[in-house]
Amino acid sequence: MEFSSKLIEKAVNEISQLPGIGKRSALRLVLHLLKQPKEQTDFLSQALVAMRTDIKYCKNCHNISDHDVCEICANPKRNHELVCVVEDIRDVMAIEGTGQFRGVYHVLGGKISPIEGVGPSQLKISSLVEKVKSGLVAEVIFALSSTMEGDTTNFYIYKQIADSNIIMSTIARGIAVGDELEYADEVTLGRSILHRIPFEKSIKSN
Amino acid sequence: MEFSSKLIEKAVNEISQLPGIGKRSALRLVLHLLKQPKEQTDFLSQALVAMRTDIKYCKNCHNISDHDVCEICANPKRNHELVCVVEDIRDVMAIEGTGQFRGVYHVLGGKISPIEGVGPSQLKISSLVEKVKSGLVAEVIFALSSTMEGDTTNFYIYKQIADSNIIMSTIARGIAVGDELEYADEVTLGRSILHRIPFEKSIKSN
Repeated sequence: MEFSSKLIEKAVNEISQLPGIGKRSALRLVLHLLKQPKEQTDFLSQALVAMRTDIKYCKNCHNISDHDVCEICANPKRNHELVCVVEDIRDVMAIEGTGQFRGVYHVLGGKISPIEGVGPSQLKISSLVEKVKSGLVAEVIFALSSTMEGDTTNFYIYKQIADSNIIMSTIARGIAVGDELEYADEVTLGRSILHRIPFEKSIKSN
Repeated sequence: MEFSSKLIEKAVNEISQLPGIGKRSALRLVLHLLKQPKEQTDFLSQALVAMRTDIKYCKNCHNISDHDVCEICANPKRNHELVCVVEDIRDVMAIEGTGQFRGVYHVLGGKISPIEGVGPSQLKISSLVEKVKSGLVAEVIFALSSTMEGDTTNFYIYKQIADSNIIMSTIARGIAVGDELEYADEVTLGRSILHRIPFEKSIKSN
Protein backbone atom coordinates (compact mmCIF):
# COMPACT_ATOMS: atom_id res chain seq x y z
CA MET A 1 0.00 0.00 0.00
CA GLU A 2 1.47 3.35 -1.04
CA PHE A 3 0.21 6.44 0.73
CA SER A 4 0.25 10.01 -0.53
CA SER A 5 0.87 11.21 3.04
CA LYS A 6 3.39 10.07 5.65
CA LEU A 7 0.97 11.17 8.40
CA ILE A 8 -1.71 8.85 7.06
CA GLU A 9 0.81 6.05 6.64
CA LYS A 10 2.01 6.36 10.24
CA ALA A 11 -1.52 6.42 11.64
CA VAL A 12 -2.52 3.41 9.53
CA ASN A 13 0.58 1.50 10.63
CA GLU A 14 -0.12 2.16 14.31
CA ILE A 15 -3.80 1.25 14.09
CA SER A 16 -3.13 -1.93 12.11
CA GLN A 17 -0.95 -3.23 14.95
CA LEU A 18 -4.16 -3.77 16.92
CA PRO A 19 -5.51 -7.33 16.74
CA GLY A 20 -8.07 -7.98 14.02
CA ILE A 21 -7.50 -4.69 12.19
CA GLY A 22 -5.71 -4.83 8.84
CA LYS A 23 -4.29 -1.95 6.81
CA ARG A 24 -7.48 -1.49 4.79
CA SER A 25 -9.68 -1.27 7.88
CA ALA A 26 -7.14 1.05 9.49
CA LEU A 27 -7.29 3.37 6.48
CA ARG A 28 -11.09 3.34 6.67
CA LEU A 29 -10.91 4.38 10.34
CA VAL A 30 -8.39 7.14 9.57
CA LEU A 31 -10.57 8.53 6.77
CA HIS A 32 -13.54 8.42 9.13
CA LEU A 33 -11.65 10.42 11.78
CA LEU A 34 -10.67 12.98 9.12
CA LYS A 35 -14.35 13.57 8.34
CA GLN A 36 -15.25 14.02 12.03
CA PRO A 37 -14.52 17.12 14.12
CA LYS A 38 -10.93 17.27 15.35
CA GLU A 39 -12.17 16.89 18.95
CA GLN A 40 -13.18 13.28 18.38
CA THR A 41 -9.57 12.31 17.61
CA ASP A 42 -8.34 14.31 20.61
CA PHE A 43 -10.84 12.65 22.96
CA LEU A 44 -9.97 9.22 21.59
CA SER A 45 -6.23 9.62 22.04
CA GLN A 46 -6.59 11.27 25.46
CA ALA A 47 -8.83 8.41 26.65
CA LEU A 48 -6.32 5.83 25.40
CA VAL A 49 -3.33 7.49 27.05
CA ALA A 50 -5.20 8.12 30.33
CA MET A 51 -6.38 4.53 30.39
CA ARG A 52 -2.92 3.13 29.72
CA THR A 53 -1.16 5.49 32.17
CA ASP A 54 -3.51 5.64 35.14
CA ILE A 55 -5.02 2.18 35.13
CA LYS A 56 -4.71 0.26 38.41
CA TYR A 57 -5.12 -3.36 39.28
CA CYS A 58 -6.91 -4.38 42.47
CA LYS A 59 -4.15 -5.56 44.81
CA ASN A 60 -6.51 -8.21 46.10
CA CYS A 61 -8.02 -9.85 43.00
CA HIS A 62 -5.92 -8.21 40.20
CA ASN A 63 -9.05 -7.03 38.42
CA ILE A 64 -8.77 -3.73 36.52
CA SER A 65 -9.87 -0.92 38.80
CA ASP A 66 -9.59 2.84 39.34
CA HIS A 67 -8.64 2.29 42.99
CA ASP A 68 -6.15 0.14 44.88
CA VAL A 69 -8.94 -2.23 45.88
CA CYS A 70 -11.76 -2.84 43.41
CA GLU A 71 -15.42 -2.26 44.24
CA ILE A 72 -16.17 -5.96 44.49
CA CYS A 73 -13.31 -6.68 46.92
CA ALA A 74 -14.22 -3.57 48.94
CA ASN A 75 -17.86 -4.63 49.28
CA PRO A 76 -18.45 -6.09 52.78
CA LYS A 77 -21.69 -7.73 51.60
CA ARG A 78 -19.84 -10.10 49.27
CA ASN A 79 -18.68 -13.51 50.47
CA HIS A 80 -14.89 -13.17 50.59
CA GLU A 81 -14.40 -16.87 51.30
CA LEU A 82 -15.84 -17.82 47.90
CA VAL A 83 -13.30 -17.09 45.15
CA CYS A 84 -14.08 -17.42 41.45
CA VAL A 85 -10.93 -17.81 39.30
CA VAL A 86 -11.27 -16.16 35.89
CA GLU A 87 -9.04 -15.17 32.97
CA ASP A 88 -9.70 -11.45 32.61
CA ILE A 89 -12.02 -8.54 33.26
CA ARG A 90 -14.42 -9.64 30.51
CA ASP A 91 -15.23 -12.80 32.44
CA VAL A 92 -15.81 -10.77 35.61
CA MET A 93 -18.20 -8.54 33.66
CA ALA A 94 -20.01 -11.56 32.19
CA ILE A 95 -20.46 -13.29 35.57
CA GLU A 96 -21.47 -10.03 37.30
CA GLY A 97 -24.06 -9.61 34.54
CA THR A 98 -25.81 -12.81 35.64
CA GLY A 99 -26.42 -11.46 39.16
CA GLN A 100 -25.97 -15.04 40.45
CA PHE A 101 -22.58 -14.72 42.11
CA ARG A 102 -22.04 -13.04 45.48
CA GLY A 103 -18.44 -14.10 46.12
CA VAL A 104 -15.25 -12.40 44.96
CA TYR A 105 -12.94 -12.97 41.99
CA HIS A 106 -9.33 -13.78 41.31
CA VAL A 107 -8.23 -12.52 37.88
CA LEU A 108 -5.31 -14.51 36.46
CA GLY A 109 -4.67 -12.19 33.52
CA GLY A 110 -4.55 -15.02 30.98
CA LYS A 111 -4.15 -18.75 30.58
CA ILE A 112 -1.04 -20.92 30.50
CA SER A 113 -0.23 -21.17 26.79
CA PRO A 114 3.21 -22.42 25.71
CA ILE A 115 2.37 -21.58 22.07
CA GLU A 116 1.86 -17.91 22.94
CA GLY A 117 4.78 -17.98 25.37
CA VAL A 118 2.62 -17.53 28.49
CA GLY A 119 3.92 -19.50 31.47
CA PRO A 120 2.59 -19.73 35.05
CA SER A 121 4.98 -17.00 36.23
CA GLN A 122 3.32 -14.42 33.96
CA LEU A 123 -0.07 -15.11 35.56
CA LYS A 124 -1.33 -14.14 39.00
CA ILE A 125 -1.22 -17.71 40.30
CA SER A 126 1.15 -17.44 43.27
CA SER A 127 -1.01 -14.81 45.00
CA LEU A 128 -4.02 -17.14 44.65
CA VAL A 129 -2.06 -20.01 46.18
CA GLU A 130 -0.98 -17.74 49.06
CA LYS A 131 -4.58 -16.61 49.58
CA VAL A 132 -5.71 -20.25 49.80
CA LYS A 133 -2.85 -21.28 52.12
CA SER A 134 -3.54 -18.38 54.46
CA GLY A 135 -6.88 -20.05 55.26
CA LEU A 136 -9.08 -17.15 54.14
CA VAL A 137 -10.73 -19.14 51.34
CA ALA A 138 -13.46 -21.76 51.75
CA GLU A 139 -14.17 -22.53 48.08
CA VAL A 140 -12.42 -21.92 44.77
CA ILE A 141 -14.55 -22.00 41.60
CA PHE A 142 -12.59 -22.51 38.37
CA ALA A 143 -14.30 -20.47 35.65
CA LEU A 144 -11.77 -20.56 32.79
CA SER A 145 -12.86 -21.35 29.27
CA SER A 146 -12.85 -25.08 28.58
CA THR A 147 -9.99 -25.18 26.12
CA MET A 148 -6.68 -26.99 26.28
CA GLU A 149 -5.09 -23.87 27.80
CA GLY A 150 -7.93 -23.40 30.29
CA ASP A 151 -7.77 -27.04 31.43
CA THR A 152 -3.97 -26.85 31.76
CA THR A 153 -4.22 -23.72 33.90
CA ASN A 154 -6.94 -25.26 36.09
CA PHE A 155 -4.84 -28.36 36.61
CA TYR A 156 -1.68 -26.38 37.38
CA ILE A 157 -3.48 -24.41 40.10
CA TYR A 158 -5.26 -27.52 41.37
CA LYS A 159 -1.93 -29.31 41.94
CA GLN A 160 -0.62 -26.40 44.00
CA ILE A 161 -3.63 -26.16 46.32
CA ALA A 162 -4.75 -29.80 46.33
CA ASP A 163 -3.41 -30.40 49.85
CA SER A 164 -5.38 -27.51 51.35
CA ASN A 165 -8.69 -28.33 52.96
CA ILE A 166 -10.99 -26.28 50.72
CA ILE A 167 -13.78 -27.02 48.27
CA MET A 168 -12.77 -26.82 44.60
CA SER A 169 -15.39 -26.65 41.88
CA THR A 170 -15.71 -25.77 38.22
CA ILE A 171 -18.63 -24.07 36.51
CA ALA A 172 -21.12 -26.51 34.94
CA ARG A 173 -20.69 -27.48 31.30
CA GLY A 174 -23.82 -28.47 29.44
CA ILE A 175 -26.39 -27.59 26.83
CA ALA A 176 -27.03 -23.85 26.77
CA VAL A 177 -30.51 -22.73 27.83
CA GLY A 178 -32.64 -22.49 24.67
CA ASP A 179 -30.34 -24.70 22.56
CA GLU A 180 -31.59 -27.75 20.70
CA LEU A 181 -30.10 -31.10 21.74
CA GLU A 182 -29.58 -32.36 18.19
CA TYR A 183 -27.16 -29.52 17.38
CA ALA A 184 -25.06 -29.87 20.55
CA ASP A 185 -21.57 -31.36 20.22
CA GLU A 186 -21.08 -34.84 21.65
CA VAL A 187 -18.61 -33.87 24.40
CA THR A 188 -20.93 -31.21 25.81
CA LEU A 189 -24.00 -33.44 25.59
CA GLY A 190 -22.07 -36.29 27.19
CA ARG A 191 -20.98 -34.09 30.09
CA SER A 192 -24.47 -32.72 30.58
CA ILE A 193 -25.73 -36.29 31.08
CA LEU A 194 -22.84 -37.35 33.34
CA HIS A 195 -23.29 -34.26 35.50
CA ARG A 196 -27.08 -34.26 35.53
CA ILE A 197 -28.74 -32.54 38.48
CA PRO A 198 -31.87 -33.40 40.49
CA PHE A 199 -34.98 -32.20 38.65
CA GLU A 200 -36.34 -30.37 41.69
CA LYS A 201 -33.14 -28.34 41.92
CA SER A 202 -33.47 -27.33 38.26
CA ILE A 203 -37.01 -26.05 38.85
CA LYS A 204 -35.87 -23.87 41.74
CA SER A 205 -33.10 -22.20 39.76
CA ASN A 206 -35.53 -20.96 37.13
CA MET B 1 -22.09 -3.24 29.88
CA GLU B 2 -20.84 -2.30 33.36
CA PHE B 3 -17.16 -1.57 33.79
CA SER B 4 -15.12 -1.81 36.97
CA SER B 5 -13.08 1.19 35.82
CA LYS B 6 -14.17 4.58 34.49
CA LEU B 7 -10.91 4.81 32.52
CA ILE B 8 -11.70 1.59 30.68
CA GLU B 9 -15.28 2.70 30.14
CA LYS B 10 -14.19 6.00 28.61
CA ALA B 11 -11.64 4.37 26.31
CA VAL B 12 -14.18 1.75 25.21
CA ASN B 13 -16.79 4.46 24.54
CA GLU B 14 -14.39 6.49 22.41
CA ILE B 15 -13.15 3.50 20.41
CA SER B 16 -16.65 2.18 19.80
CA GLN B 17 -17.59 5.44 18.10
CA LEU B 18 -15.44 4.33 15.17
CA PRO B 19 -17.38 2.66 12.36
CA GLY B 20 -17.61 -1.13 12.53
CA ILE B 21 -16.28 -1.40 16.10
CA GLY B 22 -18.76 -2.34 18.82
CA LYS B 23 -18.28 -2.20 22.57
CA ARG B 24 -17.07 -5.78 22.80
CA SER B 25 -14.41 -5.31 20.12
CA ALA B 26 -13.42 -2.01 21.73
CA LEU B 27 -12.91 -3.74 25.08
CA ARG B 28 -10.80 -6.40 23.35
CA LEU B 29 -8.60 -3.68 21.84
CA VAL B 30 -8.27 -1.91 25.21
CA LEU B 31 -7.24 -5.14 26.97
CA HIS B 32 -4.72 -5.76 24.18
CA LEU B 33 -3.18 -2.30 24.67
CA LEU B 34 -2.96 -2.93 28.41
CA LYS B 35 -0.88 -6.05 27.76
CA GLN B 36 1.49 -4.19 25.40
CA PRO B 37 4.24 -1.76 26.48
CA LYS B 38 2.93 1.70 27.33
CA GLU B 39 4.81 3.14 24.32
CA GLN B 40 2.49 1.44 21.85
CA THR B 41 -0.48 3.39 23.19
CA ASP B 42 1.57 6.60 23.18
CA PHE B 43 2.69 6.09 19.57
CA LEU B 44 -0.86 5.26 18.51
CA SER B 45 -2.40 8.36 20.05
CA GLN B 46 0.42 10.63 18.87
CA ALA B 47 0.04 9.32 15.31
CA LEU B 48 -3.71 9.92 15.42
CA VAL B 49 -3.44 13.47 16.75
CA ALA B 50 -0.60 14.38 14.36
CA MET B 51 -2.56 12.98 11.44
CA ARG B 52 -5.73 14.85 12.37
CA THR B 53 -3.95 18.13 13.17
CA ASP B 54 -1.33 18.41 10.44
CA ILE B 55 -3.05 16.76 7.49
CA LYS B 56 -3.25 18.86 4.33
CA TYR B 57 -5.30 18.57 1.22
CA CYS B 58 -3.78 19.25 -2.21
CA LYS B 59 -5.16 22.63 -3.25
CA ASN B 60 -5.29 21.37 -6.81
CA CYS B 61 -6.97 17.95 -6.63
CA HIS B 62 -8.06 17.85 -2.92
CA ASN B 63 -6.24 14.56 -2.35
CA ILE B 64 -4.76 14.03 1.12
CA SER B 65 -1.16 15.19 1.12
CA ASP B 66 1.64 16.36 3.40
CA HIS B 67 2.25 19.41 1.17
CA ASP B 68 0.12 22.13 -0.37
CA VAL B 69 0.32 20.39 -3.74
CA CYS B 70 0.36 16.58 -3.81
CA GLU B 71 3.10 14.57 -5.49
CA ILE B 72 0.89 13.60 -8.40
CA CYS B 73 -0.16 17.18 -9.19
CA ALA B 74 3.45 18.38 -8.74
CA ASN B 75 4.77 15.77 -11.19
CA PRO B 76 5.47 17.44 -14.58
CA LYS B 77 5.53 14.04 -16.33
CA ARG B 78 1.83 13.47 -15.66
CA ASN B 79 -0.78 14.59 -18.17
CA HIS B 80 -2.53 17.48 -16.42
CA GLU B 81 -5.20 17.73 -19.11
CA LEU B 82 -6.53 14.25 -18.25
CA VAL B 83 -8.52 14.39 -15.00
CA CYS B 84 -9.89 11.30 -13.25
CA VAL B 85 -12.76 12.10 -10.86
CA VAL B 86 -12.79 9.83 -7.80
CA GLU B 87 -14.47 9.66 -4.42
CA ASP B 88 -11.56 9.52 -1.99
CA ILE B 89 -7.89 8.72 -1.43
CA ARG B 90 -8.55 4.97 -1.47
CA ASP B 91 -9.63 5.17 -5.11
CA VAL B 92 -6.52 7.17 -5.97
CA MET B 93 -4.40 4.47 -4.30
CA ALA B 94 -6.24 1.71 -6.17
CA ILE B 95 -5.86 3.37 -9.58
CA GLU B 96 -2.22 4.29 -8.91
CA GLY B 97 -1.67 0.63 -8.03
CA THR B 98 -2.60 -0.42 -11.58
CA GLY B 99 0.18 1.71 -13.09
CA GLN B 100 -2.13 2.35 -16.09
CA PHE B 101 -3.05 5.98 -15.47
CA ARG B 102 -0.70 8.87 -16.21
CA GLY B 103 -3.15 11.76 -15.78
CA VAL B 104 -4.11 13.57 -12.58
CA TYR B 105 -7.00 13.19 -10.16
CA HIS B 106 -9.82 15.24 -8.74
CA VAL B 107 -10.92 13.93 -5.34
CA LEU B 108 -14.56 14.81 -4.55
CA GLY B 109 -14.43 13.68 -0.92
CA GLY B 110 -17.60 11.61 -1.20
CA LYS B 111 -20.72 11.05 -3.26
CA ILE B 112 -24.02 12.94 -3.34
CA SER B 113 -26.19 11.02 -0.88
CA PRO B 114 -29.41 12.61 0.39
CA ILE B 115 -29.85 9.71 2.86
CA GLU B 116 -26.53 10.48 4.54
CA GLY B 117 -27.14 14.22 4.23
CA VAL B 118 -24.35 14.79 1.70
CA GLY B 119 -25.26 17.42 -0.89
CA PRO B 120 -23.20 18.80 -3.82
CA SER B 121 -22.00 21.76 -1.73
CA GLN B 122 -20.16 19.43 0.70
CA LEU B 123 -18.19 17.92 -2.17
CA LYS B 124 -15.38 19.46 -4.20
CA ILE B 125 -17.51 19.84 -7.32
CA SER B 126 -17.35 23.59 -7.96
CA SER B 127 -13.54 23.59 -8.19
CA LEU B 128 -13.76 20.79 -10.78
CA VAL B 129 -16.28 22.80 -12.82
CA GLU B 130 -14.01 25.86 -12.63
CA LYS B 131 -11.02 23.78 -13.72
CA VAL B 132 -12.97 22.52 -16.75
CA LYS B 133 -14.31 25.99 -17.66
CA SER B 134 -10.83 27.53 -17.46
CA GLY B 135 -9.92 25.35 -20.47
CA LEU B 136 -7.08 23.45 -18.79
CA VAL B 137 -8.81 20.07 -19.10
CA ALA B 138 -9.08 17.94 -22.24
CA GLU B 139 -10.79 14.87 -20.80
CA VAL B 140 -12.67 14.02 -17.60
CA ILE B 141 -12.91 10.36 -16.60
CA PHE B 142 -15.68 9.55 -14.12
CA ALA B 143 -14.42 6.78 -11.83
CA LEU B 144 -17.02 6.72 -9.05
CA SER B 145 -18.48 3.43 -7.87
CA SER B 146 -21.49 2.38 -9.91
CA THR B 147 -24.15 2.83 -7.25
CA MET B 148 -27.20 5.06 -7.17
CA GLU B 149 -25.12 7.74 -5.36
CA GLY B 150 -22.22 7.39 -7.78
CA ASP B 151 -24.48 7.71 -10.83
CA THR B 152 -26.25 10.72 -9.30
CA THR B 153 -22.94 12.45 -8.66
CA ASN B 154 -21.68 11.68 -12.16
CA PHE B 155 -24.86 13.09 -13.68
CA TYR B 156 -24.81 16.21 -11.49
CA ILE B 157 -21.26 17.02 -12.61
CA TYR B 158 -22.04 16.08 -16.21
CA LYS B 159 -24.90 18.60 -16.35
CA GLN B 160 -22.61 21.39 -15.13
CA ILE B 161 -19.86 20.80 -17.67
CA ALA B 162 -21.93 19.42 -20.57
CA ASP B 163 -21.62 22.65 -22.57
CA SER B 164 -17.81 22.70 -22.39
CA ASN B 165 -15.95 21.23 -25.32
CA ILE B 166 -14.15 18.36 -23.57
CA ILE B 167 -14.21 14.56 -23.74
CA MET B 168 -16.13 12.90 -20.91
CA SER B 169 -15.74 9.19 -20.23
CA THR B 170 -16.45 6.65 -17.51
CA ILE B 171 -14.35 3.65 -16.57
CA ALA B 172 -15.45 0.42 -18.29
CA ARG B 173 -17.93 -1.85 -16.49
CA GLY B 174 -17.77 -5.51 -17.35
CA ILE B 175 -16.82 -9.00 -16.28
CA ALA B 176 -13.76 -8.93 -14.01
CA VAL B 177 -10.62 -10.56 -15.38
CA GLY B 178 -10.62 -14.18 -14.19
CA ASP B 179 -14.37 -14.27 -13.43
CA GLU B 180 -16.68 -16.87 -14.90
CA LEU B 181 -19.52 -15.62 -17.13
CA GLU B 182 -22.19 -17.82 -15.58
CA TYR B 183 -21.80 -16.18 -12.16
CA ALA B 184 -21.87 -12.58 -13.44
CA ASP B 185 -24.97 -10.50 -12.73
CA GLU B 186 -27.19 -9.70 -15.72
CA VAL B 187 -26.64 -5.94 -15.68
CA THR B 188 -22.86 -6.26 -15.76
CA LEU B 189 -22.93 -9.00 -18.43
CA GLY B 190 -25.39 -6.95 -20.50
CA ARG B 191 -23.16 -3.88 -20.32
CA SER B 192 -20.06 -5.88 -21.20
CA ILE B 193 -21.79 -7.00 -24.42
CA LEU B 194 -23.17 -3.55 -25.28
CA HIS B 195 -19.78 -1.94 -24.70
CA ARG B 196 -17.71 -4.67 -26.36
CA ILE B 197 -14.33 -3.61 -27.71
CA PRO B 198 -12.41 -4.63 -30.85
CA PHE B 199 -10.61 -7.92 -30.24
CA GLU B 200 -7.27 -6.58 -31.47
CA LYS B 201 -7.43 -3.79 -28.88
CA SER B 202 -8.02 -6.34 -26.11
CA ILE B 203 -4.92 -8.31 -27.16
CA LYS B 204 -2.74 -5.21 -27.00
CA SER B 205 -3.81 -4.30 -23.47
CA ASN B 206 -2.74 -7.68 -22.08
